[in-house]
Amino acid sequence: MESWPPGGSGPAEAGRRPRGLRGADLAASASLLSGAGAEAGCSAPAVAAVLPAGGSGERMGVPTPKQFCPILERPLISYTLQALERVSWIKDIVVAVTGENMEAMKCIIQRYQHKGISLVESGVTRHRSIFNGLKALAEDQPNCRLSKPEVVIIHDAVRPFVEEDVLLKVVTAAKEHGCSDYDLEFGTECLHLALKYCHIKAKLIEGSPDLWKVTYKRDLYAAESIIKERISQQICVVMDTKEDEEHVGHRLEEMLKNELNHVKVTSGRDIQQIILEQCYNFVCVNVMTSDFEETQKLLNMLEESNLSILYPVVVISVQFLDYESVPFGQKMENLMQIREFAKEVKKRNILLYGLLVYYPQDEQKLQESLRQGATIIAALIKERNSGLIGQLLVA
Amino acid sequence: MESWPPGGSGPAEAGRRPRGLRGADLAASASLLSGAGAEAGCSAPAVAAVLPAGGSGERMGVPTPKQFCPILERPLISYTLQALERVSWIKDIVVAVTGENMEAMKCIIQRYQHKGISLVESGVTRHRSIFNGLKALAEDQPNCRLSKPEVVIIHDAVRPFVEEDVLLKVVTAAKEHGCSDYDLEFGTECLHLALKYCHIKAKLIEGSPDLWKVTYKRDLYAAESIIKERISQQICVVMDTKEDEEHVGHRLEEMLKNELNHVKVTSGRDIQQIILEQCYNFVCVNVMTSDFEETQKLLNMLEESNLSILYPVVVISVQFLDYESVPFGQKMENLMQIREFAKEVKKRNILLYGLLVYYPQDEQKLQESLRQGATIIAALIKERNSGLIGQLLVA
Repeated sequence: MESWPPGGSGPAEAGRRPRGLRGADLAASASLLSGAGAEAGCSAPAVAAVLPAGGSGERMGVPTPKQFCPILERPLISYTLQALERVSWIKDIVVAVTGENMEAMKCIIQRYQHKGISLVESGVTRHRSIFNGLKALAEDQPNCRLSKPEVVIIHDAVRPFVEEDVLLKVVTAAKEHGCSDYDLEFGTECLHLALKYCHIKAKLIEGSPDLWKVTYKRDLYAAESIIKERISQQICVVMDTKEDEEHVGHRLEEMLKNELNHVKVTSGRDIQQIILEQCYNFVCVNVMTSDFEETQKLLNMLEESNLSILYPVVVISVQFLDYESVPFGQKMENLMQIREFAKEVKKRNILLYGLLVYYPQDEQKLQESLRQGATIIAALIKERNSGLIGQLLVA
Repeated sequence: MESWPPGGSGPAEAGRRPRGLRGADLAASASLLSGAGAEAGCSAPAVAAVLPAGGSGERMGVPTPKQFCPILERPLISYTLQALERVSWIKDIVVAVTGENMEAMKCIIQRYQHKGISLVESGVTRHRSIFNGLKALAEDQPNCRLSKPEVVIIHDAVRPFVEEDVLLKVVTAAKEHGCSDYDLEFGTECLHLALKYCHIKAKLIEGSPDLWKVTYKRDLYAAESIIKERISQQICVVMDTKEDEEHVGHRLEEMLKNELNHVKVTSGRDIQQIILEQCYNFVCVNVMTSDFEETQKLLNMLEESNLSILYPVVVISVQFLDYESVPFGQKMENLMQIREFAKEVKKRNILLYGLLVYYPQDEQKLQESLRQGATIIAALIKERNSGLIGQLLVA
């Protein structure tokens, strides 16, 4: 049995059986719950989530309902599912969608490999959709794989940035609190409804600014920028395997650390571990091996992992070049094969770019071209633009 | 005398003198006004605007107050000033800033060539700041260049996307409406304050979704995306001057029209006119002239105009190349001088990129490389990324 709250250092206590669902529809500006009046305790309550996702998105000014609008080519609702899936103590997630969107939703679940999701048909209103989701959790059918939860979190499908700590507060409040006069006075009408019709004890939890709802087109822009920023926080520099020639790669790594001081720059040979840590940006330095050997190895590992299922992975293949020893034009010509590689790996959501870094003897010039290289790497990672894949940039 | 409302078809009536200021602080979720109780009529009221801009921006989570946060390297407040300046019937704009930010604000006005702006020191609260702005408009000093307005619009410095039609509704309401019980009941507390302390007639005007307030960091992201989208709606294709060789350029132009069907693609020799129309994107095709002659001419014209003062202008210098007749590597080497040009024009907010389009005899291959070229052009214009200037991309 898990200890509760998660992360607590005390010994796990004996758990209690879920007391069955006393569902209700509660909504507030943050994340919301309908809670059974369980006594306070350290046992893990059985928690499920219901996502009403039947909206038409008319305020968005686009034909696609907002929960299905793509961000980095993936539908918004998949980000919300991902945020809930990450929370180990949420056992079941029920999504309510219109009959029309049922098939599309199944495809999304399959393509992005979401686990533990059940689908129900949405109702004509948000409240009806929530009711249908709760009913599915309450049903006592022999083949039903859903377990009856003690607490149900009701979460908008268009709030993709919900964090575990807010969800934890919501669930803890559901277990601990009685009905507060303050919340009923200053909360939203849903809290009133909960009291009036379901005699449910409700508590309003403050959300974080990140928990905002994607409503207008500008919110999609904001969500895309936030997601791009989040997956650009770590860069892994992968070096050519011949150690004695690695110094130029290390110089570039140092420059990246200096120029992008908000970004974690890691290097190391244990790529598998770095992939597990969900690093979405790789700078691959090919020094002594043939032009793309090191990059090819990395691409193979990335393809074997499932890293690029959820986010586009950026790979920048770096070549150092001393113009005086190799004719620039000839080198460029050799390297143009990167365009074909890039087209191929794009199919698996990997964005491959080439970067040629001028490597002169003069120390000052070298500093300048390394700085330029770092700027270009930062630009490619920040924008994650699929229109520029296969290009060979020059620093 | 102008007719009122602007754009009305009736004959202009004789104007009345401004009746002096009866200022108040009115705020609502949209754009706000303090209005003198002028009778309804067709004469143009004297209109001024006060922008409280003394905020500290603590909700933004960044050290810079939000009104000074850069979007495409220009402070947010400059976009708001630009939106108000475009409205011909707003005669004076008064900005209230802290003493600490007074010099920075003067620099912004000078650098972005804002006209008709006066500065006053902000107060400890938003209301005090507005009061200081109104006082400046009401003062009867011999050297004061401000004229006493009949209507004063109070507009948040962090609402950059205000449109003339909303402002017009606000001013018209200020002239026409009495105090509405509905507005006082359902409007914000400021409307109550206006009635209680100033005996001012107030009316709540519905704003558009675009009129939202930049509050959080995500709002800055959204604002940047909206601005980038707005200035990417028109692309001008500039052709080499020798007409009989223009056909490849026209093929690219057609492809751009097909691929970017939401964008207006224009071509023409009257660049001055297109600059006046505020087109911020140029594709310059160099066919028969030496590598950058046509691009150089365009860059000179852009530098002489003031087009790039407010927004970064994208220039993509396109070269067509049949690999079979000219060695690819050698051509690339010649074209690398674009990096130096790009560094130079970046100082004047012009983002220069190079694009080499493969031009084979085979029709299908040609279509493919033109399509690839259009994709790259779209990507460069959409992102407007200064980290990639001077790069030579290949389609």
